[in-house]
Amino acid sequence: MFDCGKIAIIGGGSWATAIAKIVVNNTQHIGWYMRRDDSIEKFRRLGHNPSYLTSVHFDVNQIFFSSDINTIVEQYDTLVFVTPSPYVKNHLRKLKTRLRDKFIITAIKGIIPDENLACSDYFHQVYDVPYENIACIGGPSHAEEVALERLSYLTVACEDIEKADAFSNILSSKFIKTKTSTDVLGIEYSSVLKNVYAIASGVCSGLKYGDNFQAVLISNAVQEMNRFLSTVKDIPRNIYDSVYLGDLLVTGYSNFSRNRTFGTMIGKGYSVKSAQIEMEMIAEGYFGTKCMKEINRYLHVNMPILDAVYNILYERISPQVEIKLLTDSFR
Amino acid sequence: MFDCGKIAIIGGGSWATAIAKIVVNNTQHIGWYMRRDDSIEKFRRLGHNPSYLTSVHFDVNQIFFSSDINTIVEQYDTLVFVTPSPYVKNHLRKLKTRLRDKFIITAIKGIIPDENLACSDYFHQVYDVPYENIACIGGPSHAEEVALERLSYLTVACEDIEKADAFSNILSSKFIKTKTSTDVLGIEYSSVLKNVYAIASGVCSGLKYGDNFQAVLISNAVQEMNRFLSTVKDIPRNIYDSVYLGDLLVTGYSNFSRNRTFGTMIGKGYSVKSAQIEMEMIAEGYFGTKCMKEINRYLHVNMPILDAVYNILYERISPQVEIKLLTDSFR
Repeated sequence: MFDCGKIAIIGGGSWATAIAKIVVNNTQHIGWYMRRDDSIEKFRRLGHNPSYLTSVHFDVNQIFFSSDINTIVEQYDTLVFVTPSPYVKNHLRKLKTRLRDKFIITAIKGIIPDENLACSDYFHQVYDVPYENIACIGGPSHAEEVALERLSYLTVACEDIEKADAFSNILSSKFIKTKTSTDVLGIEYSSVLKNVYAIASGVCSGLKYGDNFQAVLISNAVQEMNRFLSTVKDIPRNIYDSVYLGDLLVTGYSNFSRNRTFGTMIGKGYSVKSAQIEMEMIAEGYFGTKCMKEINRYLHVNMPILDAVYNILYERISPQVEIKLLTDSFR
Repeated sequence: MFDCGKIAIIGGGSWATAIAKIVVNNTQHIGWYMRRDDSIEKFRRLGHNPSYLTSVHFDVNQIFFSSDINTIVEQYDTLVFVTPSPYVKNHLRKLKTRLRDKFIITAIKGIIPDENLACSDYFHQVYDVPYENIACIGGPSHAEEVALERLSYLTVACEDIEKADAFSNILSSKFIKTKTSTDVLGIEYSSVLKNVYAIASGVCSGLKYGDNFQAVLISNAVQEMNRFLSTVKDIPRNIYDSVYLGDLLVTGYSNFSRNRTFGTMIGKGYSVKSAQIEMEMIAEGYFGTKCMKEINRYLHVNMPILDAVYNILYERISPQVEIKLLTDSFR
């Protein structure tokens, strides 16, 4: 059986914190890269992440913190990347150590901007990491619920299924059930698209469309996602597996989803800018929409929901008009 | 093009009232069978259904009311049955007029108890109605939202697609989009199963399982539904079409769903009886669960969610135990 070796987490947000907790519970030691020294210092002092999932306590003696990415990459074998996709390149800019012998796991749920590459493709093309050394984590998983130890199901995907098995064993616990897959790219793309569809769902809710219509929207979103995934990687794939459909549902139907909230504000008439200021953050799906639109320029998949969200967010076309058009395309 | 002729509604609940409103808007006349003369008298006086969707006003001059089922069946060509499934036999008991030349449309969303037959099979086997004269209405459709004229999508299914087209034209309006299908039995069964799954969803919510798990439950429910439908009628079927998946979503995710509320009370520890007393009504899925379990005794489809709900409701096995077992069967 493949041995993951020493495991480090790259990133300091809520999903990073949830994954760190799951891993360290099973391994008793992790490395943890965080960008800011003051956050690390505070974390050490408080025994929890000072900014995210503050109720989750850690034994800081089990953690080697560093704000130097090279130190972490040098000393650890398995690197779990859990940063917002727009910041990945920034974190890696200082990297002098090679990545290609490492086991890279992405829990990023985003596309690398400019290059418009899924993270697995980015690590492969830019850092020469062979695909069999790249895995991703998917599944319906609000970090807050994982932190509360509410039963969740995660999927670890890797072309080398033994490696997927090895890391899935490390995630597995009383409240985390895991399974494996080889569909890295499909899972990565679906976790980006679901944010786009959550924005669409929010926009419709803001426009006062009801539950009946939401159900039709999500049904059409599943089909749109399936069309895209089949084009990008045509393998036998059960789209109503929880890693695809379930992840879409938990994001599209949850009022806690930042993407859905962002969409709702847009539907209610906020401008993109004022919705972002009001939320004090930028919903990931905002970037995801642009990246997916760019990628689909080459693939030409019929994606009316993606197009509508793009037009609303980037072309300033009125949500009323775009959603009305969408309703005519639905079946 | 097939002509639906004169159309009558059989039943007086909220879904019957919503359908009556849609039809009469397009046809300017309907017949309407209601069981109780005092309800009819009140309806005439008030201009709306005295008990359901009371905000929906009708021009009573466009309605021929009768509490005599024979009068209605004799005088009308297309009969839309919209009663709770446990009462269908009772309404039909007094029938002396033959049904087999009529166009029968079922919007019943249930199984006929004892016989354990889908409504289309019941009308065919007991009343000799040929399958090409039997249609059903499906799709995600809270009656309350249809009444509020919020955009909804309905599907009319009939083996004779011309007849499905004809009735779908009658339902179609600015706020109702329609499509057609030939999968009468599949749509009928899915509309029963979704109530079972809504109960399961409520039970899990009552037991404090979170959104992550709900998404896994619903993903598994779609797959269980697909397995059953493929066994009962193996035709090419897009299970994530809104008439299957959408209907499941609107019921499983809505707090307004009576089946979900019923399940939530069970999950919180109410007995079946006290939940029913508290709700002042019996959730349809309660009967649906028993019927589907009976039907599946002959089909042997792997249906762990149905089995769990059955055991909880009819075998008094604790929800904790059943749902825990279910979590192990999920993927």
